Amino acid sequence: MRTIYLDNAATTKLHPLVRKAMSECEEDGFGNSSSLHSAGRKAKEKLDLARETISKKVFAKNHKLIFTSGGTESNNFAIKGLALGSREKKHIVTTKIEHDCVLNTLGFLEKYGYKVTYLDVDKEGLVNLEALENAITKDTLLVSVIHGNNEIGTIQNLKEIGRIVHEKGSVFHTDACQSFTKQPIDMEKDNIDLLTINAHKIYGPKGVGALLVKEGLGLEPLLHGGGHEYGLRSGTVNVPGIVGFSKATEIIGEREIEHMASLRNQLVKGLKDIDDCWLNGPEVDSGKRLCNNANLTFMYAEGEAIVLYLDALGICVSTGSACSSNTLKPSHVLKAIGLKQEQSHGTIRFSIGIDNTTEEIKYTIDCVKGTIEKLRQMCPYKY
Amino acid sequence: MRTIYLDNAATTKLHPLVRKAMSECEEDGFGNSSSLHSAGRKAKEKLDLARETISKKVFAKNHKLIFTSGGTESNNFAIKGLALGSREKKHIVTTKIEHDCVLNTLGFLEKYGYKVTYLDVDKEGLVNLEALENAITKDTLLVSVIHGNNEIGTIQNLKEIGRIVHEKGSVFHTDACQSFTKQPIDMEKDNIDLLTINAHKIYGPKGVGALLVKEGLGLEPLLHGGGHEYGLRSGTVNVPGIVGFSKATEIIGEREIEHMASLRNQLVKGLKDIDDCWLNGPEVDSGKRLCNNANLTFMYAEGEAIVLYLDALGICVSTGSACSSNTLKPSHVLKAIGLKQEQSHGTIRFSIGIDNTTEEIKYTIDCVKGTIEKLRQMCPYKY
Repeated sequence: MRTIYLDNAATTKLHPLVRKAMSECEEDGFGNSSSLHSAGRKAKEKLDLARETISKKVFAKNHKLIFTSGGTESNNFAIKGLALGSREKKHIVTTKIEHDCVLNTLGFLEKYGYKVTYLDVDKEGLVNLEALENAITKDTLLVSVIHGNNEIGTIQNLKEIGRIVHEKGSVFHTDACQSFTKQPIDMEKDNIDLLTINAHKIYGPKGVGALLVKEGLGLEPLLHGGGHEYGLRSGTVNVPGIVGFSKATEIIGEREIEHMASLRNQLVKGLKDIDDCWLNGPEVDSGKRLCNNANLTFMYAEGEAIVLYLDALGICVSTGSACSSNTLKPSHVLKAIGLKQEQSHGTIRFSIGIDNTTEEIKYTIDCVKGTIEKLRQMCPYKY
Repeated sequence: MRTIYLDNAATTKLHPLVRKAMSECEEDGFGNSSSLHSAGRKAKEKLDLARETISKKVFAKNHKLIFTSGGTESNNFAIKGLALGSREKKHIVTTKIEHDCVLNTLGFLEKYGYKVTYLDVDKEGLVNLEALENAITKDTLLVSVIHGNNEIGTIQNLKEIGRIVHEKGSVFHTDACQSFTKQPIDMEKDNIDLLTINAHKIYGPKGVGALLVKEGLGLEPLLHGGGHEYGLRSGTVNVPGIVGFSKATEIIGEREIEHMASLRNQLVKGLKDIDDCWLNGPEVDSGKRLCNNANLTFMYAEGEAIVLYLDALGICVSTGSACSSNTLKPSHVLKAIGLKQEQSHGTIRFSIGIDNTTEEIKYTIDCVKGTIEKLRQMCPYKY
C-alpha cells in the first residue's frame, strides 16, 4: 500500500540532494575538522562553508553559528547556557505554547530558583504584545518565544517581540525549528539574539541543528570538552551531517511554500464540511500560519483512534507533537488557545510535505470523512 | 596523490556497510520514532533493534542504553547527570589522562563546589589501584577512568578498578570510545555503572553515541524536553544514525584487530631504528595497549612540523588528540606519564585503520625517517 505521509512537522524524509551532499562529504570530507592534516582541513573547509551558507540564510551578521545535535539541544543550550553564563538575573519570560524542550528546560531552572512567567496566548495562539511588555522586568534575563508553533502553526511577530524585548533591556531567543526556510527570518531586523534551527524538519538529517548566538552574549557551554565551535559546544563536529543541513536549507523555496500552502488549503476546505469540526490556530490566508500546517478538531471522535484508522488506510498524521504521542496528557498548546479536554482529544495535526500531491489530499479528505463517520457511530456521546 | 590515513583515533571513514544500513533506514525508517503511525513504528522497531544489538555487545543486562550525540555528550551526561541527580556527595575521582571532555566537565563542576581528585598514572599510563582505593571516600560520588587512552593507547584494568570502586561504595564510569569493539567490555564482570561509547571511531557516523546507565542510578537529564530515551535524553531520536552505529559495532572483529595490531607492530619496529626515538605507553605485546595505537616521540623534531611534512607526502597522522590540535599546550597525557615539554612537542600519534596495508606502513616508515632527518638538520639543538 502507498503511504501518504502528512506528518512533516514531526520529521521529514531525507531529500536525495541532501543525501548526495552527505555521501560526498562522507567520502571526501570524513576527517576530523580539528585535525591539522589534509583530511582534517578538507572537513574544516566544508564546515566553514556550511556555517556561512546557513548564517546567510538568516542574515546573521553579528552572530556566531554553533552547530548542535538538534533543536532540543539548541533550546537547552540557549536557555541553560545563558542562565549559567550570566548568573545575576533570575527571571525568564516565555509563552504557554512553547515546545516541550523549552518548557521542561525552564521547569528544570525553576528548581534552581529561577522565576518563569508563562504568557497566555489568544485563541489563534498569538502572544499579546502589551502583556509581554508588562512581563519584562529589570531582572528578566531572557524572553523565549517560539516562532512557528509546532502544533497549530501560529507564526509570531518576531520583529515586534524582539523590539519590545530589546527596549526593555532583555535577551530574545526564538525556536524557529518549524518555520526555518518556510518563513523569512532576519536576525538583525527581527531583533533576535538567540535562534534555534534544525535540519530534520526541512529534509535534512536527524541529529543536526544550530544555535545562533549574538556576539558578546556570554553563554556557558552545555557540553564541555575539546573546545570545538568557538569553545561553546564540544564534541567531534558532525561535518557530513552539517553539510546535509546546509544543503537542506536550499530545498524549500517559494515554489515549495506555495505548493504546500495550496495543498493545505485544499485539505482544510475539504474537511471543514464535516459537522462539529473546526480549524485551530490562525486562518489559512491570515499570513500568521505556517504554510504546511492544518490542525483540526473533530468532535466526538478520539484522536488516537483517528490516527490509527488513517494509518490503516496508509495515511500518516499525528495527534499533536510527536514527542507527546505516547502520553494521554492533553496538549498544552490546545489548552492555551482555550480548547477543553474533550475538544483537545479529538484534534489532529496534518503537516504537508513538498512531495505530497493533490490526489493524495483528495484521498485523505475522503478517508478522514469516512473515519470520522465510523468513529462517531461508535461514540457513546452525541452520535 | 594517494592518502594514507593513519589518524583513526581522531575519526574513521564511514564503512560502506554502515552507509548501506543508514540509507535503507533513511528510505524506510525515516519517521519520528515517537509517532504512532506506521512510519513512526518502523523507526521505533529499528531503534529498539539497534539498542538491543549494542547492549548485547557489552553484555548489558541491568543497564539502560541511552542514545546521545556522541562521546562528549555521553561523558558530560554521565558526570553532570549523576552530580545533579544525587546532590549529596561532592567528591569525584578521576585520572590525569582523561579525555578533555571529562576533565573540562569536572573543571566546570569544581566551580560549583565539587572536589576532584586527579590520580597520577605510571610511565605506561596505568592507574595505581592502591592509590585509587585510598582516594575513594564516603563522599565520593563517582570514579571516572578512561578505558583505552586516546593518545597513548593504555588500557586500564576495568574489572579491578570497578571492583575497588564498588567495594568502596561509589559509582564507576568509564569512557570507552577508543576501546569499544577493539577490547572486550562486559558491563557486569567489569563492574561498570556508566559506559560511554560512540560510533565515529568505529567506522560509524559522526554525531552518534550512547551512555549505558545502571538501573536505579538517578541521573538528571542534560537535555530536557519531550522525554525521549526513557526520559533521560530528549530530542528527536536520530534513528538512521543509530542504525549506522549498530551496524558499525560489527565492523571490527578478531581478524581486524589482528590486522591492525600487526601493522602497528610493523610500524613501531620500523621507526624504533631512529635515534632518540621511543614508544610512549605500554609495549605493543603487553596486552595493555589498544591494537591500533602507536605513540612515538622523536626528539629534536617538532610535532606539528612532522604532521605537515608527512601530510605533504600524503600521510595523515596527529600530534595527539584531534581536539587539542589547534593549541600549542603540551599534552596533559604525555605530561602525566612523565614527558618533559620538549619531549612532548616531538610526539606523534599513529592510529591504524582496518583498511591500511603493509605497503602503506612501509612507505610511512620511509617517509617518517626522511622527515625526521630533514627536520633534525634544521633543529638548532642537537643535530
